[in-house]
Amino acid sequence: MFITLEGPEGSGKTSQLPRLAEALRAAGHTVLTTREPGGTPIGDQIRKVLFDLGNKSMHPRSEILLFQASRAQLVEEVIQPALAAGQVVLCDRYADSTMAYQGYGHGVDLAQLAELVRFATGGLQPQLTLFLDISPQDGLRRRDADGNWNRLDDYDFEFHQRVYAGYQELIAAEPQRWAVVDATRTPDEVAAELARIALERLQSK
Amino acid sequence: MFITLEGPEGSGKTSQLPRLAEALRAAGHTVLTTREPGGTPIGDQIRKVLFDLGNKSMHPRSEILLFQASRAQLVEEVIQPALAAGQVVLCDRYADSTMAYQGYGHGVDLAQLAELVRFATGGLQPQLTLFLDISPQDGLRRRDADGNWNRLDDYDFEFHQRVYAGYQELIAAEPQRWAVVDATRTPDEVAAELARIALERLQSK
Repeated sequence: MFITLEGPEGSGKTSQLPRLAEALRAAGHTVLTTREPGGTPIGDQIRKVLFDLGNKSMHPRSEILLFQASRAQLVEEVIQPALAAGQVVLCDRYADSTMAYQGYGHGVDLAQLAELVRFATGGLQPQLTLFLDISPQDGLRRRDADGNWNRLDDYDFEFHQRVYAGYQELIAAEPQRWAVVDATRTPDEVAAELARIALERLQSK
Repeated sequence: MFITLEGPEGSGKTSQLPRLAEALRAAGHTVLTTREPGGTPIGDQIRKVLFDLGNKSMHPRSEILLFQASRAQLVEEVIQPALAAGQVVLCDRYADSTMAYQGYGHGVDLAQLAELVRFATGGLQPQLTLFLDISPQDGLRRRDADGNWNRLDDYDFEFHQRVYAGYQELIAAEPQRWAVVDATRTPDEVAAELARIALERLQSK
C-alpha cells in the first residue's frame, strides 16, 4: 500500500512520518519511508539544487522538471520495488505537491502538469493521502521559529495561500483518497490520528 | 538568430563552436555561445548530476527530466534575453538531442518527448541546426582517444547507432532547418564550412 503525506510548510509532516512508520511496524507491517524531493542518491543531489538559497533565479518550469526528475528516480528505484515486495510505502510529499505548489501556486497549466506527473511516475498513484491541515500563516510561523527556512519558504505569502487553496480543490476532487487531519493539535494527538486512519485503511484493504 | 549544433559523441561540436562564434563575430555579429546541458549556474549543477559516473542507476525518465530542467533554465535565463537583444545564439546541443538520445536511443515515446520539450523550451526552436556528421564508430573512437569518457558514452554501442539513425530521421523530417557537414574532414575544413553555411543563412534572413 502506497501512502503519501501532504500539507503546507510547517505542518509537521516530516516529524510525523517516522512516528507513523513506527505505529504501522508495531502493527506488524513492513514499512519503507521516503521523501520528495530526494529519497535516492540521485534525488538527493537534485534536492540540493532545488533548496540551495543561491539558486533564486530558478525558473518555475525548471523547478517543476527537477521535482519530476527526482520523482521518476524515486518511483523506479525505491517505491515500485518496495510495493512489489508487499511493503507499506510512506512518502513525505508526492505528485499532489506538484499540483498544489507549481500548479495552483505558480499558475502553471494544471493539465500540462498532470501530464508531466504521469510521465515522471509512470502512472503510480497513492491509495491514501494524509493531509496535515494548518493555515499558511500558522505553518510558516512554525517553520520560521524552528530556523528551518529554505528557498521555497521564501516565496511571497500569497503564493502559500494559493497552495493551500489548491490542496482544498485536490481534496474535493478525490475525497475517497484523502484524509484530512488537524495539524494544529499536539504532536501526540496528530500522531495518534494518523496511525488510526492508516491502520483502518490497511485493515479494510 | 538561434543556431544549434548537433551530432554524435566525438563529432567535434564542442571544439568547433568557439571557432564558428569567432567567424560570425569577424563578420560583425554579436554572438552568444552556450551549451546543453548547462549554460547557467543552475544548469551546470544539473549537468554535474547527469555526467557523474557514480550515477549509473539513473532511470531514463529521470535523465530526460534533468535535461529538460537544464534547458528550461537556459532558455529563460540566457537564450531568450540574447535573442531579444538581437544577438546570434549558438548552442551546443538542444531539443534535437533529446529526440535523438532519449527518443530514438532509449525508445521513449516520441510524441510524449516532444510534449516535454515544448514545456521546457516554451516552444522556442532554432532557425538553423548544423549536424556534424560522423559515424558512431568513428565518433566514439575519437572520444576514447581524447580521454573524455563520461557516463553517457558508456551506453552500449547499439544505443549510439540508434541515436545516429534517429538524427537521420529528424533531418529528413525538417530538411530546411538542418545543414549536414561532414565531420570526418580536418578541423579547419569543418570550421570553414560551418562558417560559410551560418553566414549565408544570416545574410538571407
